[in-house]
Amino acid sequence: MLNSWTLLISNLKNTKVFNQIRCASQVLPQLSSEKYNVRRKQFGNIQASDVDYFKTILSEDRVLTDENDILPFNIDWIKNCRGQSKLVLKPKSTEEVSHILRYCNEKRLAVCPQGGNTGLVGGSVPVFDEIVLSFMLMNKIISLDELSGALVCESGCVLENLDNYVRKRNLIMPLDLGAKGSCHIGGNVSTNAGGLRLLRYGNLHGSVLGVEAVKADGTVIDCLKTLKKDNTGYHLKHLFIGSEGTLGVVTKVAIHCPAMPKAVSLGFFGVKNFENVLRLYASAKSSLGEILSAFEMADNDSISSTVENLKLPNPISDYPFYVLVETSGSDETHDAEKLSRFLDKEMESGLIVDGTVTSEPGKMQTIWNLRESIAGAGLIDGYVFKYDVSVPLANYYSLVPLLRQKLGSKAVRVYGYGHVGDGNIHINVTVPKYDQEVCSMLEPYIFEEVAKLNGSISAEHGVGFRKPHYIHYSKDVTAIHLMKQLKQLMDPNGILNPYKVVPEV
Amino acid sequence: MLNSWTLLISNLKNTKVFNQIRCASQVLPQLSSEKYNVRRKQFGNIQASDVDYFKTILSEDRVLTDENDILPFNIDWIKNCRGQSKLVLKPKSTEEVSHILRYCNEKRLAVCPQGGNTGLVGGSVPVFDEIVLSFMLMNKIISLDELSGALVCESGCVLENLDNYVRKRNLIMPLDLGAKGSCHIGGNVSTNAGGLRLLRYGNLHGSVLGVEAVKADGTVIDCLKTLKKDNTGYHLKHLFIGSEGTLGVVTKVAIHCPAMPKAVSLGFFGVKNFENVLRLYASAKSSLGEILSAFEMADNDSISSTVENLKLPNPISDYPFYVLVETSGSDETHDAEKLSRFLDKEMESGLIVDGTVTSEPGKMQTIWNLRESIAGAGLIDGYVFKYDVSVPLANYYSLVPLLRQKLGSKAVRVYGYGHVGDGNIHINVTVPKYDQEVCSMLEPYIFEEVAKLNGSISAEHGVGFRKPHYIHYSKDVTAIHLMKQLKQLMDPNGILNPYKVVPEV
Repeated sequence: MLNSWTLLISNLKNTKVFNQIRCASQVLPQLSSEKYNVRRKQFGNIQASDVDYFKTILSEDRVLTDENDILPFNIDWIKNCRGQSKLVLKPKSTEEVSHILRYCNEKRLAVCPQGGNTGLVGGSVPVFDEIVLSFMLMNKIISLDELSGALVCESGCVLENLDNYVRKRNLIMPLDLGAKGSCHIGGNVSTNAGGLRLLRYGNLHGSVLGVEAVKADGTVIDCLKTLKKDNTGYHLKHLFIGSEGTLGVVTKVAIHCPAMPKAVSLGFFGVKNFENVLRLYASAKSSLGEILSAFEMADNDSISSTVENLKLPNPISDYPFYVLVETSGSDETHDAEKLSRFLDKEMESGLIVDGTVTSEPGKMQTIWNLRESIAGAGLIDGYVFKYDVSVPLANYYSLVPLLRQKLGSKAVRVYGYGHVGDGNIHINVTVPKYDQEVCSMLEPYIFEEVAKLNGSISAEHGVGFRKPHYIHYSKDVTAIHLMKQLKQLMDPNGILNPYKVVPEV
Repeated sequence: MLNSWTLLISNLKNTKVFNQIRCASQVLPQLSSEKYNVRRKQFGNIQASDVDYFKTILSEDRVLTDENDILPFNIDWIKNCRGQSKLVLKPKSTEEVSHILRYCNEKRLAVCPQGGNTGLVGGSVPVFDEIVLSFMLMNKIISLDELSGALVCESGCVLENLDNYVRKRNLIMPLDLGAKGSCHIGGNVSTNAGGLRLLRYGNLHGSVLGVEAVKADGTVIDCLKTLKKDNTGYHLKHLFIGSEGTLGVVTKVAIHCPAMPKAVSLGFFGVKNFENVLRLYASAKSSLGEILSAFEMADNDSISSTVENLKLPNPISDYPFYVLVETSGSDETHDAEKLSRFLDKEMESGLIVDGTVTSEPGKMQTIWNLRESIAGAGLIDGYVFKYDVSVPLANYYSLVPLLRQKLGSKAVRVYGYGHVGDGNIHINVTVPKYDQEVCSMLEPYIFEEVAKLNGSISAEHGVGFRKPHYIHYSKDVTAIHLMKQLKQLMDPNGILNPYKVVPEV
């Protein structure tokens, strides 16, 4: 059974904690092929003549063959996977990507497209000697229609750079992730990244206006329209959103940027039990309506792991459950009024036992830090088994007590926290050190339970290299068959991001 | 050249006008195959044994063979297309749909799936003797999670019925159409219907949570999850959203219903020129932010055609442009304050020359009627050429003066109105009677101009039977090729809704 710590840094924005974790793992990770016992597929082997050919397409400095230069492209962000690529190509244009892929397809050379390499399921690094196609030099902003909010850019643009660019024009990017300082918009689109703004601005299938992508055979599919409405034929762009570079490689993105909110406020509340968390969510949806931009929860063990392990302050007392409510709106006075009225009402009703509301940036950051540090805090206990699942709201928290009961004293802590508004819970099980027995008690048990609840075993992190053999818990056999047919249609030689997403059997 | 009056009733909600139009066309329309000179494809012919077989799958009363019973299924809403089907089947379950399609696929019998039959491009009626698969009896609501807003229902549910159902639970459907009293949710999903709430709640690719669909060979593809986040493999549901029943038949839908707004207000403003319409849109986005739920425009000729031809009252004086701004929010006082502040500011700035703001339902209806009656008003002039296009906002209105100049005195009126917030303009050209010369001056000229602006020749109405040979103006040749490959993959015998969507050459 595979362990689950690839999900370790989920939503982690606390840089200090993140650096601690990075420093803790300076040893070179084991090769993915050995660690996970994978056999290389029958692809071509890269010859000197291939490298020479690529140098005729790209300038010499954009064809990396030196082992040290290539190493960072072979290892994923959380140092769980390590590939064996011997060649990194850095195209600067769609035409170059097209030439490269056409050649690779003819020669049966496997390719691993790579954006910011911040994925958590090993999807962005090679497994064997796949050629790494890095988008780091395709980072131009092409256009912004400030009125409609339509931004068009190359796929290698870093999300935070785009957000800074559009914020100067009173817009924001419709998604926000912990990894925003490194991740590429092309990677976000290819993995259908979720993140912190989904409750308010919806998912990428709704906000991506257009995509330009290159198929395995080098064909450029131009669906780069900037229109909100376009019903002329099949909606092809969705083939490339969330297929993790296995059906085609995203080269340009057109995306809708919403107006920047003028006022942001944050409430942090103590709640008696999980039923009341759900009641409070219903009340927040009704009272705060259009200004509700986040509704997050954490149980007592989540917050106490942060307080105890990371010494972060909890601004309120000890409660069984905590809820974080964020509002973003266009009128500070109105928004503050709505939020305090909501707080008054629900303290009166008893749904909120205790709480604090603030719109001071420093205080808001303190509260967000507390919430976002949960992801890393469990590490101090020893080892963390982490799961990122979606389940219908009525059963949102039900897996946590189930696991507590099952594991008993074998676990240090079992806790759950996450995006209630999106039905997405992160479940962590901490143990003094990695334990195969605990692992066997957890997997596939937790996936079976998620399947019973008609949930998703990967809410936002994707499938990548680590989960193809688990997707049958969330996807039905005919759907998986159709996935395989699509892969065969779009990439008959299977050169695009092999060993990823599509299950082998 | 084909005339364009299939787009006639776009957004038409004024029942009186609509009834006038229906009464004006009681004559049986010409057969589509003759009118548009189409050849029947090599499908099987229905035999008595086939009908007998269907009677073993469905009860006898759900297998229609009587010509009079079948007639309404052969004619589209606006009586432009007429098919020659001799068999209508009314399944009650996905299993029945699956059995029917498996049989039809084996026998190469063509099938036309039909929802509420309110489409405007002839997509929902047969062309020759395709078997009509009517979803009118698959109209059960399966579940509603009142907290998350996830509604699951069969595809034959009428949109308005669903809206009424969820409104009783303080939710609304995320889309609203003129045809909501007849259209089916399955048809909405299959055509990626746009409508009046898109600015606020986004498109169906964002709000549809899951789909169950049946492929041509009878395989049921179950992607009926109710989760907001699910990144386990390819996002297959999008294949069925907007492919108009040519890749598979939608049998069940899971959709996210937003919270019902507690307060709705409407402003109707006179504006000096189109540049100021765009400036006002920018200001509304900024000032009204999250409560802005519609931003519609109409030029002077649009409103005067309504006032003159339909005798509807214009609540303000005569202006070159009119703008309708709707807000929907959770706090009546706050919303009214925002809207009047916006009005005061922009009357002061001169962007609004005159205006009225109301939240009285009757007065709001009067203003909406004025806006929505534009679609039918031009008919009184004689004949209307109608176009439904999307273009980037900077050029939103540019086609109207271009056409005015080109047509000169040959047109009675040339006017433009539509959803500025979605970049979607409806352009009408009225003439005393249908005129081939005017038609040749308009088409393909207007499609060429839309293509130059990187726009869409069908913003929300789809392709259907009427537009496959025009989609190359908005879709590039490689994208069209990929469409054909997908059709071949999903429906190799081409039995699903033939003669529609995918261009023949």
